Amino acid sequence: MEMLSFASVDAYVKARTGWPTPNVEFELDYVAETMNPIVPSGGARILPSKTFEEVQDKQFDIILVPGGPGARPNVISPSVHEFVRKQAPRATYVLSVCTGSWILADAGVLEGKRATSNKAAFRDLVANTSRGIQWVPKARWVVDGNIWTASGVTAGADMGYAFMTEVCGDVFATRVKNIVELHASGPEDDEYADVWGLV
Amino acid sequence: MEMLSFASVDAYVKARTGWPTPNVEFELDYVAETMNPIVPSGGARILPSKTFEEVQDKQFDIILVPGGPGARPNVISPSVHEFVRKQAPRATYVLSVCTGSWILADAGVLEGKRATSNKAAFRDLVANTSRGIQWVPKARWVVDGNIWTASGVTAGADMGYAFMTEVCGDVFATRVKNIVELHASGPEDDEYADVWGLV
Repeated sequence: MEMLSFASVDAYVKARTGWPTPNVEFELDYVAETMNPIVPSGGARILPSKTFEEVQDKQFDIILVPGGPGARPNVISPSVHEFVRKQAPRATYVLSVCTGSWILADAGVLEGKRATSNKAAFRDLVANTSRGIQWVPKARWVVDGNIWTASGVTAGADMGYAFMTEVCGDVFATRVKNIVELHASGPEDDEYADVWGLV
Repeated sequence: MEMLSFASVDAYVKARTGWPTPNVEFELDYVAETMNPIVPSGGARILPSKTFEEVQDKQFDIILVPGGPGARPNVISPSVHEFVRKQAPRATYVLSVCTGSWILADAGVLEGKRATSNKAAFRDLVANTSRGIQWVPKARWVVDGNIWTASGVTAGADMGYAFMTEVCGDVFATRVKNIVELHASGPEDDEYADVWGLV
């Protein structure tokens, strides 16, 4: 989803000759419980830009919920669910990558909706979330209304490209895709539902 | 390349029932000039784990050099070239993603070697680096001896999977690929040399 940074207010691509300027620009925040570094399940420690408390009076247009082994009811902080529950009803778009959709489910955002998630965690997820959610096993990503849910990790890039096309238009999104050299998969191009025996 | 974290000493996958344990484990460091947060061209600020000075007496087995708009001779810190120049001769593997290969080129590591890089920057790169380097325009990634160079950004995941197969074996690498749901491209599966008019 870091492709979206190409359309951020301080995106470096805008300074380059010949690059198209996006007609929409994002201001990005990375919101967490405290300003302490986040230790992800893979990669370097990352820094939040704001705390949940700091943004409690702000409504975001877009929220993106990442996943990982920390996206489980028994380990995740209640502040995350609270933030999602508060933001989702008036957000223009709600997105998740990987088991981020488990957080959306537990925050009540996916009730009556179609959604997908990481296939390695899929059975656990279905068994432990509301029966009112229509979990789609075979999908790279799923769009239902304003809710976009991607499958495991790398599917986030494919969904990110489709989302950027929706928000910034095809010309800009394609330029960004060409810079990051994404082999863009379609929403139904999913081999992993089969790999994990879900279909 | 964060897939490699799955084989790190504190990888969470090892604690999961039924997961294979890698026969090789990585200890990861993110080395930079200072301990100040790094502001990448996209995404959240990240924290180094060590400074170049702290590791000056240490030889790493594997070094991975990332790219981005900062990987240019006129903007990059000389400490980065110095680090690469010092580490590369005795490293078991030297890897780069995107224009990280421009740094390798300027550090003298690619002399007489085949290598690739980001296709959007390719012409600039070829015009401004040693004639002794055999830049390969049509490649998702290139392996020459112990040097692995990937094309733009997302090609790093495909190369990362191939590299993990080499280092950790096929069974473990495939498990990780299945968790991150990577649509793994082969080394010659490159549409972007054509998109950028390089072939």
